[in-house]
This record gives sequence, C-alpha cells and structure tokens, in this order.
Amino acid sequence: MPRRPRRRGPDIEVLRLGHRPGRDPRLTTHLALAARALGARRLWLHPPDPSIRERLDAVRARWGGTFEVLPCEDWKARVRAFDGTTVHLTMYGRPLPAALPRLRRARRVLAVVGGAKVPPDLYGLAELNVAVGAQPHSEVAALAVLLHELHGPPRAREFPGARQVIRPSARGKKVEAAR
Amino acid sequence: MPRRPRRRGPDIEVLRLGHRPGRDPRLTTHLALAARALGARRLWLHPPDPSIRERLDAVRARWGGTFEVLPCEDWKARVRAFDGTTVHLTMYGRPLPAALPRLRRARRVLAVVGGAKVPPDLYGLAELNVAVGAQPHSEVAALAVLLHELHGPPRAREFPGARQVIRPSARGKKVEAAR
Repeated sequence: MPRRPRRRGPDIEVLRLGHRPGRDPRLTTHLALAARALGARRLWLHPPDPSIRERLDAVRARWGGTFEVLPCEDWKARVRAFDGTTVHLTMYGRPLPAALPRLRRARRVLAVVGGAKVPPDLYGLAELNVAVGAQPHSEVAALAVLLHELHGPPRAREFPGARQVIRPSARGKKVEAAR
Repeated sequence: MPRRPRRRGPDIEVLRLGHRPGRDPRLTTHLALAARALGARRLWLHPPDPSIRERLDAVRARWGGTFEVLPCEDWKARVRAFDGTTVHLTMYGRPLPAALPRLRRARRVLAVVGGAKVPPDLYGLAELNVAVGAQPHSEVAALAVLLHELHGPPRAREFPGARQVIRPSARGKKVEAAR
C-alpha cells in the first residue's frame, strides 16, 4: 500500500468568541494575524466585525496566502457543524501536551478562543478543553502555542500570491517584490 | 565531576518597547500575562505604565509566582547592560529554528518586542534578530512561541505562593484554595 504524502498537520480553523467591535480591534487583529502567520486557514469572528476582515484582506493582498476572516452569527451552530475536532483553549482545561497526539492525528481542527467571559455552554460543546498553562493568559498566546505545535514553523510557500516578501536578515529590514 | 542539575532552559526577561499608555492597555496586559504564564521572570516596560504593573501585581497575589513588571526609562541602556543574550523578535529577522540552539545554551535571555514602529537602532543593538514567521504578526504570539520553545510547558510549582490553583479539567472550571 503506498504511503500517503506527509501532511503538514491538520487543517486548522479558528473561532473567536466574545469579540467586542469598537473596543478591542487591536487584540482581535493580533489574534487574526497570529492565526494567519502560524498556519490557520480561516478565522470565524463572533460577533462579526467587517473592520477586522478588511484589515486582514489588506494583509493578504500584500503578503499573500488564502487566510480569510468570516462572520459567525451563531457560534453554537458553528461548533456543532464542524466536521473535525473542536478544541477550546482555556486556562481551566487539561494540559496541552496530553491532547497533542489526538489533535495531530485529526484531519481538521477548530480552535475556539474566547475573551475574559466565555459562554459556559462552550465547555460542554467542545470536544476538548485544553490549557496552555493553568494560569491567566492571553488567547493570542495560547492560540500561537497551539498552532506552533500543530503546524510548525511557517514557510514562505504557504503564502502564494504575495506582492512582496521578506528576505530574512540578521540586521534590519529587507523586503523585495515577489517573483 | 558532578553533573549540574538539569536546568529548565535560560532565565528569560522581556523588554517591551513602544507601549502606548492609555491606548493599548489590553494588548500590553496580554503580553505581560503571556510572559508570566510561559515562564519569563520579569517584563521591562518602555515607556513605564503603573497601570500594567498594578494589574500584574494583582495576578501574582492571586495566582502566585514571582513575575514582575518593571519600568524602563532608557531602553538602549537596558539592552546594552543586559548580561546575557539579547534577541529582538521581528518579522524581518532570521528564522527562529536556526537561533534556538544558541538561545537554549544561553544562561540568560532578554527577549525584546516592539509594536508596529520599532526604533531602527534596535536591529543593531540586539545580538539576534529573529522571526517567528516572515509575516505580519503579533508580538504576543511571537513571544509566546519563543517562550514555549525555550521554557516548555509551565508547571504549577513555578508559581509558589498562590492563593488559589486550577485543577485541570476536561469540562468546566475547577478552582481550589492553594494548600
């Protein structure tokens, strides 16, 4: 039986709950940028916020890739309908290392992150409740660690269609037009 | 010759540049919480902002550990005076995996993170300019990945003196008084 080609971990989507349009655009922008840079395919945003989508559309036009921000009106329906493994990142969950084997085997992962107040139903709806350290934390940091563990270091070819690319440099900024 | 006891990676401090008091308290709070939760010893904040220090002091009183936020008036002096390896996290730098062996061997590491606008001098002053993906990013996410690689999963005993601790749980929130 032929071996399947080596996959780069599961296909990952992110669902961000408890976004507060107008109040925390920067924090959710950081979450979206981290999701994109570390290999997630898309971010569902609840409640929807066109300003975040526009910001990430501009990043994609310049820096490539296919990452998208999509509106999520009904987060419970989104979690229930997901065809894969749903993992809620929470300081109260089981330690990440114990969950990693299962997450790495999954074909698709939906990572759910909340803000300070998370709907209690989420703990029951998510298949896994996982902690990146049982301490008060940042959902941006917790998502980054999860994506890093599942996806590994991002590679330039994961961002096709860029207008410009960075030439990694020991000193200063080197940016060139994409070929 | 007796073997030295196994260390848990280098002693890590964080220097946050370009904080904007009043404008981005939440973002810098997230950065500080991530630094604490993922094993950094302290965060130097430039320019200083007592409100962030007070917030993290309250977290320490409740959740334990020795993490502290310290004011930094002169960031260049702080970088120059640091007795260890200084690493600037920037999307323009060399890939993190190439820098990890050196960082893991270091006794002390100062991780420097900026905001959107970083003083150009920093690229020359830092010993290493390192990228967690050559894409627009979040400094919270980049710091989280660095700390995760250097420190590994945080452990409860790294946070002595807590008033309460989390009992990791597959469902819901379980918090108990610390023994």
